[in-house]
Amino acid sequence: MRDAYSYPPSMRRLVNELSKLPSIGMKSAVRLAYALIEPSNSSAEQLAEAISAARTALRYCEECFSLTESTVCSVCTDESRNRAVVCVVEKPSDIISIERSGDFNGLYHVLHGLWSPMRGVEPSSVRINELSTRLEKLGCVEEVILATSTTVEGDATAMYIANMLKGADIRVTRLAQGLPMGGELEYADELTLSHALAGRQSID
Amino acid sequence: MRDAYSYPPSMRRLVNELSKLPSIGMKSAVRLAYALIEPSNSSAEQLAEAISAARTALRYCEECFSLTESTVCSVCTDESRNRAVVCVVEKPSDIISIERSGDFNGLYHVLHGLWSPMRGVEPSSVRINELSTRLEKLGCVEEVILATSTTVEGDATAMYIANMLKGADIRVTRLAQGLPMGGELEYADELTLSHALAGRQSID
Repeated sequence: MRDAYSYPPSMRRLVNELSKLPSIGMKSAVRLAYALIEPSNSSAEQLAEAISAARTALRYCEECFSLTESTVCSVCTDESRNRAVVCVVEKPSDIISIERSGDFNGLYHVLHGLWSPMRGVEPSSVRINELSTRLEKLGCVEEVILATSTTVEGDATAMYIANMLKGADIRVTRLAQGLPMGGELEYADELTLSHALAGRQSID
Repeated sequence: MRDAYSYPPSMRRLVNELSKLPSIGMKSAVRLAYALIEPSNSSAEQLAEAISAARTALRYCEECFSLTESTVCSVCTDESRNRAVVCVVEKPSDIISIERSGDFNGLYHVLHGLWSPMRGVEPSSVRINELSTRLEKLGCVEEVILATSTTVEGDATAMYIANMLKGADIRVTRLAQGLPMGGELEYADELTLSHALAGRQSID
């Protein structure tokens, strides 16, 4: 039996590296590899450079652990932001979502994960201890908004932090749960409806 | 109105470069970017290197235009392959598919595209002229198998090549069209069934 022709080593290596990315299977990896080796595709070199540059330049903010190219991020250094409110999120991209709403002017704290006994993630392995250290350091915090996801893990993490902050003179809040905008009652699940009912508000 | 926090420049650049890849939208680009900048992800550097290495090492075979790291690919230099049969395919990955079947031992010719009047792709901009030059050079070719897709463009390209080779003493064939293996009649479209009927074969 003769050897079948297969891709040259550098192509196999590229496909292999691409297939390690999240949600990229073998077929997508091959398609991406072809796009990347296309001689007319000048942006492939740009991508290689962008990966290296980002890995060199980016770090986590020493204060809030969001992404930054400095020691401290632009939110933490922004004197116009309200230092009395800290919004706790799971990951840096959540900050972008909240900033897009335009309705928050406080500081952030990125946990980089959620407490998940099922997956063996302890509270100590996400940045919860760093949160209490930071609140002490800031001194003036009046409110901590827990903006973790409304999943089992997000809720558990929020409860854990709320317990931790009991006794401190800080108001602890959680993002409202209810129907999403444009959400039809017909398609809302029972749990969402329960929360929407429990959190119902008077119309003045 | 204050500036909302957004990603640092190197992150924005990385997301932007990733979103230029085929079938990678903005959300996927952000998810991939996070995976690539993750400090514990050592394979991100590997990917950046693999892209550069592949772009430097890979070229198209001077004979058949498949991918190779040499001047001529391993199929074209393989003395054990049958030089009397040339299989014409659209792209290098099609070679991998045919090789996987294990039933072909001839040479290949990669067109790098298909004739598509609708998208303004002329036969001269895919490697059809190179095919006739090559057949002349090889001299001994008895059969050309047209293995382009069974799409409008694949069929048109096959017809174009068949016409071009008229008069030359070469048998021109096309891959059989019919029901795929495991294909249920119920789900076969009319055109596939028409081809399957027209190409029906006696059972000896």
